[in-house]
Amino acid sequence: MQEYITLAHQLADASGTIIKQYFRALVSLQEKDDHSPVTVADLEAEEAMRRLIQASFPEHGIIGEEADAENGDAEYVWVLDPIDGTANFITGQPLFGTLIALLQNGEPILGMINQPINNERWLATRDDKTTLNGERTCVRTYSDIGEAVLSTTSPYLFSPEKKAAFEALMSKCRYTVFGSDCYAYAMLATGHLDLVVESGLKAHDVMALIPVVEGANGIVTDWHGNRITLGTGEIDIIAATDKTLHQQALAVLNSHA
Amino acid sequence: MQEYITLAHQLADASGTIIKQYFRALVSLQEKDDHSPVTVADLEAEEAMRRLIQASFPEHGIIGEEADAENGDAEYVWVLDPIDGTANFITGQPLFGTLIALLQNGEPILGMINQPINNERWLATRDDKTTLNGERTCVRTYSDIGEAVLSTTSPYLFSPEKKAAFEALMSKCRYTVFGSDCYAYAMLATGHLDLVVESGLKAHDVMALIPVVEGANGIVTDWHGNRITLGTGEIDIIAATDKTLHQQALAVLNSHA
Repeated sequence: MQEYITLAHQLADASGTIIKQYFRALVSLQEKDDHSPVTVADLEAEEAMRRLIQASFPEHGIIGEEADAENGDAEYVWVLDPIDGTANFITGQPLFGTLIALLQNGEPILGMINQPINNERWLATRDDKTTLNGERTCVRTYSDIGEAVLSTTSPYLFSPEKKAAFEALMSKCRYTVFGSDCYAYAMLATGHLDLVVESGLKAHDVMALIPVVEGANGIVTDWHGNRITLGTGEIDIIAATDKTLHQQALAVLNSHA
Repeated sequence: MQEYITLAHQLADASGTIIKQYFRALVSLQEKDDHSPVTVADLEAEEAMRRLIQASFPEHGIIGEEADAENGDAEYVWVLDPIDGTANFITGQPLFGTLIALLQNGEPILGMINQPINNERWLATRDDKTTLNGERTCVRTYSDIGEAVLSTTSPYLFSPEKKAAFEALMSKCRYTVFGSDCYAYAMLATGHLDLVVESGLKAHDVMALIPVVEGANGIVTDWHGNRITLGTGEIDIIAATDKTLHQQALAVLNSHA
């Protein structure tokens, strides 16, 4: 595992150097087929990470947001999102993150969230619990859903039915915050909020989050309570600090969805 | 003016020191009459700023979010919001800001947005254009509303009619980002987004923003295109990079509101 951890840090360093150069600089904004924004920073950061993986472990597979999968059936597959939260990135807000996951036979065994502007790096592996810049982090103690703070990136990313389910959950929680992308999961894993609920994500958006949340004693599943796997397609995700809260939130979501 | 600028920096330094101590620490969360969250960090930061103003300019008035107005009819009145974006603060996200304004006969002549975690400080005065940490900043060039990036804190802060108006504007813009509170105005004044639209704000939420946006060559008015004054009560605000964009956005908002 140590050689994979070393590589993950190299990937975060290399992508971070590129992203910092483009942060708050004039970057031209392209639009992808799904209308999500992409910049030269996304493309160059992913390319740099792919080259490093190929140099160290040419037999490993790579699935990334910005280019075709390579050797996706390998035992070990890296799943990369160079900038999760491109809208935050292009508006100068340091809440985006670089997501790096390593899967063995489809199961994430390493997850990293790197925030290169704030110099924050969350890491968890099959063997080691979640750390933020080397310090152990953990979810906070849960008391009651009425005290919970919920997060999602945008309510406009839900289908109408799922939006109704999300709004029902909002009405049970104390506060809801918006706009955080992967940073919300990092904050949950560091004890600052209780629930994250999103819809329509892809593997590269979530694979790195699973070890980080679970390694902080949190729970992350789809909206049916099932473990998220590479084959799930469009992913409806819920992350919670606690089993009881997870069950309560799922009950609300599924009574409306 | 220089003595007021010096005091504004002292207020930002003092409030920033307090806020940093409580950021990502366990703080108990109180709820105000309007159900918005408040913490000991808000209260202590405002109290520290009030003491500094009283020591330097005992004849000046003070209007703050967390305590009663003092001498609000004075020629010079400081308008303070110790933590604008308390929801971001309590969830560990460094997008909140301390808002400091000085009004002379009701007109803002100094505005400061201080982000104590990222060490970012925007300042503008009647005499000097907007700076970020001493470097001049300015809005970006506008081309077309279809290219504009819009920001608001939460769509659930609008009344149903105003939400419909906001959503009509969303549909005209390229992207919409959420969750940024005062940081969105700072990003507009630094050239990273084009429009901010919010509803139901109070004087302490907006007075510091006006000089910062205007000093960066932006425009900030209410939804009728009128200048925002202390007496406006609940404030529906629009900030734009450009006169044409401002007029286009107002036309959309008012055809639905």
